Amino acid sequence: MTDLGNQLHEFAKQLWPMNRSITGDGVRMTLLAIKKYLPDLKIVEIPSGTRAFDWTVPQEWSVKEAWIIGPKGNKFCDFNQNNLHLVGYSEAVNAKFSLAELDNHLHSIENQPDAIPYITSYYAKRWGFCIRHCDRLKLKEGEYHAVIDATHFDGSLTYGELIIPGRLKKEIFISTYICHPSMANNELSGPVVSTFIGHWLSQLEQPKYTYRLVFIPETIGSIVYLSKNIDVLKENVIGGFNLTCIGDDRAYSYLPSRKGDTRSDRIAQHVLASLDTNYVQYTWNDRGSDERQYCAPHVDLPIASIMRTKYGAYDEYHTSLDDLVNVVTPTGLNGGYLAVRKALEIFENDQIPSANVLCEPQLGKRGLYPTLSTKRKNDELKNMMNVISLCDGKHSILDISEKCNITFESAFDIVTLLSRHNLVDLFDIEQAR
Amino acid sequence: MTDLGNQLHEFAKQLWPMNRSITGDGVRMTLLAIKKYLPDLKIVEIPSGTRAFDWTVPQEWSVKEAWIIGPKGNKFCDFNQNNLHLVGYSEAVNAKFSLAELDNHLHSIENQPDAIPYITSYYAKRWGFCIRHCDRLKLKEGEYHAVIDATHFDGSLTYGELIIPGRLKKEIFISTYICHPSMANNELSGPVVSTFIGHWLSQLEQPKYTYRLVFIPETIGSIVYLSKNIDVLKENVIGGFNLTCIGDDRAYSYLPSRKGDTRSDRIAQHVLASLDTNYVQYTWNDRGSDERQYCAPHVDLPIASIMRTKYGAYDEYHTSLDDLVNVVTPTGLNGGYLAVRKALEIFENDQIPSANVLCEPQLGKRGLYPTLSTKRKNDELKNMMNVISLCDGKHSILDISEKCNITFESAFDIVTLLSRHNLVDLFDIEQAR
Amino acid sequence: MTDLGNQLHEFAKQLWPMNRSITGDGVRMTLLAIKKYLPDLKIVEIPSGTRAFDWTVPQEWSVKEAWIIGPKGNKFCDFNQNNLHLVGYSEAVNAKFSLAELDNHLHSIENQPDAIPYITSYYAKRWGFCIRHCDRLKLKEGEYHAVIDATHFDGSLTYGELIIPGRLKKEIFISTYICHPSMANNELSGPVVSTFIGHWLSQLEQPKYTYRLVFIPETIGSIVYLSKNIDVLKENVIGGFNLTCIGDDRAYSYLPSRKGDTRSDRIAQHVLASLDTNYVQYTWNDRGSDERQYCAPHVDLPIASIMRTKYGAYDEYHTSLDDLVNVVTPTGLNGGYLAVRKALEIFENDQIPSANVLCEPQLGKRGLYPTLSTKRKNDELKNMMNVISLCDGKHSILDISEKCNITFESAFDIVTLLSRHNLVDLFDIEQAR
Repeated sequence: MTDLGNQLHEFAKQLWPMNRSITGDGVRMTLLAIKKYLPDLKIVEIPSGTRAFDWTVPQEWSVKEAWIIGPKGNKFCDFNQNNLHLVGYSEAVNAKFSLAELDNHLHSIENQPDAIPYITSYYAKRWGFCIRHCDRLKLKEGEYHAVIDATHFDGSLTYGELIIPGRLKKEIFISTYICHPSMANNELSGPVVSTFIGHWLSQLEQPKYTYRLVFIPETIGSIVYLSKNIDVLKENVIGGFNLTCIGDDRAYSYLPSRKGDTRSDRIAQHVLASLDTNYVQYTWNDRGSDERQYCAPHVDLPIASIMRTKYGAYDEYHTSLDDLVNVVTPTGLNGGYLAVRKALEIFENDQIPSANVLCEPQLGKRGLYPTLSTKRKNDELKNMMNVISLCDGKHSILDISEKCNITFESAFDIVTLLSRHNLVDLFDIEQAR
Repeated sequence: MTDLGNQLHEFAKQLWPMNRSITGDGVRMTLLAIKKYLPDLKIVEIPSGTRAFDWTVPQEWSVKEAWIIGPKGNKFCDFNQNNLHLVGYSEAVNAKFSLAELDNHLHSIENQPDAIPYITSYYAKRWGFCIRHCDRLKLKEGEYHAVIDATHFDGSLTYGELIIPGRLKKEIFISTYICHPSMANNELSGPVVSTFIGHWLSQLEQPKYTYRLVFIPETIGSIVYLSKNIDVLKENVIGGFNLTCIGDDRAYSYLPSRKGDTRSDRIAQHVLASLDTNYVQYTWNDRGSDERQYCAPHVDLPIASIMRTKYGAYDEYHTSLDDLVNVVTPTGLNGGYLAVRKALEIFENDQIPSANVLCEPQLGKRGLYPTLSTKRKNDELKNMMNVISLCDGKHSILDISEKCNITFESAFDIVTLLSRHNLVDLFDIEQAR
Repeated sequence: MTDLGNQLHEFAKQLWPMNRSITGDGVRMTLLAIKKYLPDLKIVEIPSGTRAFDWTVPQEWSVKEAWIIGPKGNKFCDFNQNNLHLVGYSEAVNAKFSLAELDNHLHSIENQPDAIPYITSYYAKRWGFCIRHCDRLKLKEGEYHAVIDATHFDGSLTYGELIIPGRLKKEIFISTYICHPSMANNELSGPVVSTFIGHWLSQLEQPKYTYRLVFIPETIGSIVYLSKNIDVLKENVIGGFNLTCIGDDRAYSYLPSRKGDTRSDRIAQHVLASLDTNYVQYTWNDRGSDERQYCAPHVDLPIASIMRTKYGAYDEYHTSLDDLVNVVTPTGLNGGYLAVRKALEIFENDQIPSANVLCEPQLGKRGLYPTLSTKRKNDELKNMMNVISLCDGKHSILDISEKCNITFESAFDIVTLLSRHNLVDLFDIEQAR
């Protein structure tokens, strides 16, 4: 659709084939590709075995090849054709099996016969293959040769971190994950949109807030990142979002922070309502991504989620059907990007206006009011009068926009006009509260 | 209908023909007529050019005559027949025009062909006539002689103020406006009801609160009044109402103060709900009268509006159809008067009752309880028991009435009975909170 | 139904025939029967004439016999057949009357012709009989001999009190009443369930809270009890219930404390919702039992009501039809008992869990999490993760269960498991708040 949507989609295609997991070269290749857009991205390696709160960084996993050859010599479940065929973090195997034996190591979804499921086994040693159920049904008795040429070794867990300094030390935190192999909405949409958001932020002359973007493996990555940065995050982060499932064009969705009423929550809801009055509102109990860690008890960062169609809420989720053709589209990615950008713009631009004349100002003498008084007022004028009536040094522009039933942008434009006419003083949210 | 309704209606008829505007003799005549009912009314003159916050008191406007004579010598748009024919604050003119030229100075309403619209141009120099659209359509080509014998000069803006001292310095503030020419609901109903309310208050032996009633031109008048009295108003006013559009019999309406939860708001809502369960509840965004100034940022007086049919919410609004025949009626005025009076009675009579026996009192020995215990209790007894159960020194009589789903009057009567039987102590709202 | 239901029902049958009133031997016999189950029950006598706040303990009332003999020598309204036939607290009489004279002293219910109504006259001297309306209609002209062999004398008011010491001085207060003659739901269900609850509490090794159970005559009894114990009750009682109408099987009902948001209220609502999503929620204005005294202004104990079908809300109420056959059943009593017991278990077991690791704990290594990550999580796991996410040292287990939409028991089991795995610390509600 749009240029931007196409660029996002192209970048997703580029990242598509890399075999991401919670560790390994797939992650590193992904980060290097992102670094092309974000040259200041710092790539960090955390050694296997490092403790992180209740967790330990696992061994690194590397796969050379993986496949099965059937009784008639036909190769299938070939990792090189689709990395979803291999259960994530599988142990090595090289042996022959009867169909019955092999079957214990096969995974498919009966009611989605054309989908290769996405399965992992990070914390128990296993091997296995994922297969379309329609193909599984065709397997005949006979000898099967299964090969997984994979190693687990003491290496490291890799993540990327970008810090864009702002006028204030206070931070907005954006987190996305890079541990899923070839699937589009969950997860490529997240790192792709985050990369472009990072690029946009880098171009700003000087943002008000400092921005921290992280590209991490889900769960273990956010836990590791928190364990290394908990103090500075708790000190500085005043808002932010976990970005995932933000690339299809079927819905907009919001999932709250644990507290549910942070600035991130209010801003997310405002932006989504302005984009789609029917946007989906989830609850904390519906969560399932890294907000689980960021909002955990005693961590309590003000992180909400802005999504298109949420993980688990679409049929293609965690299968090979979650692709860049039918699920994630340029329009979908563009919409996701815009939602996040609008949200960040509200963080940047929200202020507290306070009228500096008592009573309504005389707008007429400033050319802001019609001189002929007739029966009806137009909406624009009504909005301006409503905004003025709330410039009391207590309501922020966001508060005002919601009380006036207008978008943040409209309220911001009116307040800017009033400020230019010296009718309001503006205070930073940080000062005023 | 009622005597009082008829008296109100007669007084409105008396005020009807005066040519009110934001300044001038029409205002003075109106105030002198009101002063007949309220001898202590102080009439105040504020010189043209006086600064009032962001505004300046405009020049005074005086009209001797205004009319148009058409090609065939027929006079129309005659100010002496209906003062709405002249655009308010028009400049003088005495010249001949083609129909096309004249037409630029004519105002009518296409879809209300029988109505003369009400138009003003206070803050830009203009002249113009208002005409029924049906008459406008009949105008033929030819020469038109338009005369407006009007002057603008340094004079003054006039308003009336009545202060009725109470036991407390704390004030209830009633504001109404006197700047519209011959229209009934907006605006004569306002000053007429306010006059009679003032009269009633003057008869009270000693009200608890001090009452301040002002009769002012809208907008510029309230701004001027605030600019001269802001400190005392902010110090003393604990409640009050802006009175306008309070004379027709089609609805009861409430428009909140900016804060929305002041005593004025709660009392207005209680009274209106008791008069009409379907009363209309507007929001702050629907406002349009002097509450715009009284509740402006940093002014913040607790002023709400009690209305019948709100300005802008009826077809006849701001036209010659807003009359004393079809729109404003004795019944309508009487209902408006009663609503305001009930509200003021709640201000006066609300107190905090506190039981002075522990547990329920033994009502039987005081003849307040049936001695035979059968299956059903009557409502009266139930209400009394409910009221008693809430006399905890925290709930006011108004709070209690709402929790018991009864009117303030019913709760007040029960509390008075309990007090007479020495079962509750009564505390002033001012003491208790 | 259940064994326990049958035991409750049997005990109710045993108490059925005793002629309870606000004083007298019927009360004493009832208390002695209860004491068989609760050996530590203290039976207290308060002399007639004792002052209790606004009230005075009335004289004791004793009835030997009461009946009417009709014109044909037929005896009816015989107190020995059904103690409801005699108006409670009737004066003595022994005289002959015409039917018209007698009729002034008869009470029946026209639209419940088969019911003997329950009528009392405690605070005005009267005599009277209650009769089925169908029987009343059959009475013929003639001479009627009415005998009430009753005395009023300075005796005492009797109540029972059981205190079960707990680890804390803080108390849970259970009140029920024993002043109604032969009626089942109102009132025998109350003392019967309370007795069994007392028995269960007595068997606990050491409860956290001290439990205070009282068996008193309604109204005058609770007022007397409060007058003697107000200081200790206000100091110690942190929750409790008034138990009445808790034996039929047609509904579960909740009536709030006056404040409406005490722990008792929240717990009652949680338990009832878990038993019956359609349980009936009454308001404070619907009250009618001893919560009137316990929650009176300045008394303000946190006492709510857990009921089956509320007094006044069923046709048989306060008539002979409120019986142990059609109204109160073993199943009904069992359900009432369980509701109360569950509520007390929540009081006992609620605590504040606080996670002692940052971020989610690694449940997998403790065998609490599936090692294979597939598309769907089961509910059990989801509940556990939800509970963990709320162990922030601010939410109690009850709070958590409500936020997770699970029962208290489920949340309690999860928290207990987490505690066993040393993943949360537990704090007493008393410490934490």
